[in-house]
Amino acid sequence: MRQSQLFTKTRKEAPSDEVAKNAKLLIRAGYIHKEMAGVYSFLPLGLRVQNKIVGIIREEMNAIGGQELHMTALQDPEIWKKSGRWDEKSVDSWFKTKVKNGGEVGLGFTHEEPLTRIMTGHVRSYKDLPFSVYQFQTKFRNEERAKSGILRTREFLMKDLYSFSQDEKEHEAFYKRAIAAYKKIFSRAGIGEKTYLTFASGGNFSRYSHEFQTITDAGEDAIHLCEQCRVAVNEEIIKEQNACPECSSKKLSAQTTVEVGNIFTLGTRFSEALGLTYLDEKGASRPVFMGSYGIGPGRLMGTIVELFADDKGIVWPEAVAPFQVHLVSIAGADGAKVGREADKLYEALTRKGEKGRNGEKGVEVLYDDRALRAGEKFADADLLGIPLRIVISEKTLADGKFELKDRRTGQVSVMSERALMEKLCS
Amino acid sequence: MRQSQLFTKTRKEAPSDEVAKNAKLLIRAGYIHKEMAGVYSFLPLGLRVQNKIVGIIREEMNAIGGQELHMTALQDPEIWKKSGRWDEKSVDSWFKTKVKNGGEVGLGFTHEEPLTRIMTGHVRSYKDLPFSVYQFQTKFRNEERAKSGILRTREFLMKDLYSFSQDEKEHEAFYKRAIAAYKKIFSRAGIGEKTYLTFASGGNFSRYSHEFQTITDAGEDAIHLCEQCRVAVNEEIIKEQNACPECSSKKLSAQTTVEVGNIFTLGTRFSEALGLTYLDEKGASRPVFMGSYGIGPGRLMGTIVELFADDKGIVWPEAVAPFQVHLVSIAGADGAKVGREADKLYEALTRKGEKGRNGEKGVEVLYDDRALRAGEKFADADLLGIPLRIVISEKTLADGKFELKDRRTGQVSVMSERALMEKLCS
Repeated sequence: MRQSQLFTKTRKEAPSDEVAKNAKLLIRAGYIHKEMAGVYSFLPLGLRVQNKIVGIIREEMNAIGGQELHMTALQDPEIWKKSGRWDEKSVDSWFKTKVKNGGEVGLGFTHEEPLTRIMTGHVRSYKDLPFSVYQFQTKFRNEERAKSGILRTREFLMKDLYSFSQDEKEHEAFYKRAIAAYKKIFSRAGIGEKTYLTFASGGNFSRYSHEFQTITDAGEDAIHLCEQCRVAVNEEIIKEQNACPECSSKKLSAQTTVEVGNIFTLGTRFSEALGLTYLDEKGASRPVFMGSYGIGPGRLMGTIVELFADDKGIVWPEAVAPFQVHLVSIAGADGAKVGREADKLYEALTRKGEKGRNGEKGVEVLYDDRALRAGEKFADADLLGIPLRIVISEKTLADGKFELKDRRTGQVSVMSERALMEKLCS
Repeated sequence: MRQSQLFTKTRKEAPSDEVAKNAKLLIRAGYIHKEMAGVYSFLPLGLRVQNKIVGIIREEMNAIGGQELHMTALQDPEIWKKSGRWDEKSVDSWFKTKVKNGGEVGLGFTHEEPLTRIMTGHVRSYKDLPFSVYQFQTKFRNEERAKSGILRTREFLMKDLYSFSQDEKEHEAFYKRAIAAYKKIFSRAGIGEKTYLTFASGGNFSRYSHEFQTITDAGEDAIHLCEQCRVAVNEEIIKEQNACPECSSKKLSAQTTVEVGNIFTLGTRFSEALGLTYLDEKGASRPVFMGSYGIGPGRLMGTIVELFADDKGIVWPEAVAPFQVHLVSIAGADGAKVGREADKLYEALTRKGEKGRNGEKGVEVLYDDRALRAGEKFADADLLGIPLRIVISEKTLADGKFELKDRRTGQVSVMSERALMEKLCS
């Protein structure tokens, strides 16, 4: 995309009421816009990043057999009363509203109840089990505090997957596959090394549930990390057992973290409340055994910003970056020539792939073709955080070479057009 | 996808309170689920159709330079008070709710106000204009009636595009491109022949706005169609001028229609209310001239069902069908052999394309590998409405041929595997 066409502009200052690093940087760089406390719109660059994260999650959910659907925000009180989660006393983060000529409805903060009801129309026999479904859907939570930028918001996209099994044993097998899928997601998104499978309290149906916690000072959580096993326990668990649940080591180090994912054994809590049963091999009616598995793509995006940003701006891992390459033209006295050469390189890089070159979409390039001073362009490029910067100027043209800079390491390399195309397009 | 893995089942009866044909068929076929009156979840097949429609719209919006973003449902009252649209007297379809420790907020039914505010941070000079942005975002409308299935719902996905221009002349040029893009969208989605550009009342800034109206008895609107020009006028306009606005013909025929899109000149109404100005070439401050352009993908999907369904079920145009091919295996005495051959054909059809064959994704096939009687499978296939059905049975294997049936025409052709692969995969 030509940056001259992109409507967003960078800004020197974030809103004065914004305290979180992720929000300050994302607003300054034009990725997001703050509508109200805890409510953020995603501008084109921000939506691109979120879509990259969504794409990674979708691939991994499909790989474990998840079927994608899309439920509604508006929630029928009837089913939440059956599960005991309608009352403000049991759930204090509801947004509620009123339907004209009708009663009160809720805005979904999760979807166990409506999905369980849907399944009563589709699950009949043990032959229909196991399976899992997921969605990317906007959740609403009436949070008390909203000070952490996009790490904790009142409205956010969530990937929620739900599994349906005959019994605990069948459930456990899927649960393990979900853990493996989550590890892949965090690894592909670039935060695998800082993210730990964390044992948390399990509820009625399981000794433990699991969180995925990423170490960052920006977090609101704390974990106790076993360096030996690379697993952790959360604050609830450490109170019960001051030891690693895997190796029983008592050498645990406290860390500040943000929860980037959680998986939970629901058992038959919702299927019993809402009448989701199946006929087993002997023809007996039994409640379906369920699990739930959540990731917030926006929170993951905020966590990535917190982890990798430096004093110049955002640093995106390649897999989630809005563009792979930031092509920056620096027009000197002979601006027209630099422009022509930069245009040519932009076309060559973004051309859709043939015979395997460039992939299906070509290389994703943000092309800074704006008539600005070099210093301003470089400052914007650092703030935006695209992994690879290519500079074209009269000097680089005179040398017949391009200058490449790695945003993360700052390392600069100089190469011919041919070497550049080979590096980026093969 | 193997149909044995798909969790949704078809059903003989729709909910007894459902009167609209689109909802009855879509629920019976397992495309959607009714949560409450006017509130529908999209199950996997339904989401696939909606995503196809979204894909077509996105391509055409990108083709006219639209930049995609994503705004929030939760709405800050402050900006709606400035435009005069917060009050129940001016807008009677608000859903409103309360933020904890804060005041009342709305659920967006459209997004002129928040987008105009966003733009005050990004538009400075005439050099920043014109441009357009769009989103696919969930809208909430507190409708009095909700009897038309997914044609009119209280919560729905909407594509809303907004244009920002220096003045009316610049706006008109974009407006014409938007009309052309909309025509392409409806044509690609298969309803072009039944859809008419319709002159509607224009508001303060323009003599006319435009609707796209599709002729179907299921509609809640009426238009007056000039057979000569293939344009129409809506009920408001016919009262003012009983003639075609293009050719002045008075031969207009009344038709029942559903509105599948609308485009609107907003002028400076919102930019003046919210202070969105730019500096023109002479350095004078002027309000930005705006337009808005909406399409509801769910309503479009419902309209397609209404238009093409027959007494056996849904009939999808190819471009929006959840799958292109419904492969149905009919196991007889030697079920294993039929299964093996059907598996082989399924693999061959869905294999990702190489050298241009099969495209990027292979052919999209729903493979009915379920152990059911032929009659049940054929009835399900008719209900689901996938454009092309391929049957494999002992008989077709004995003949060395496959039977293809066109869902729309009912036409059956018999062909060799080679001819089949050439037809579908080149």
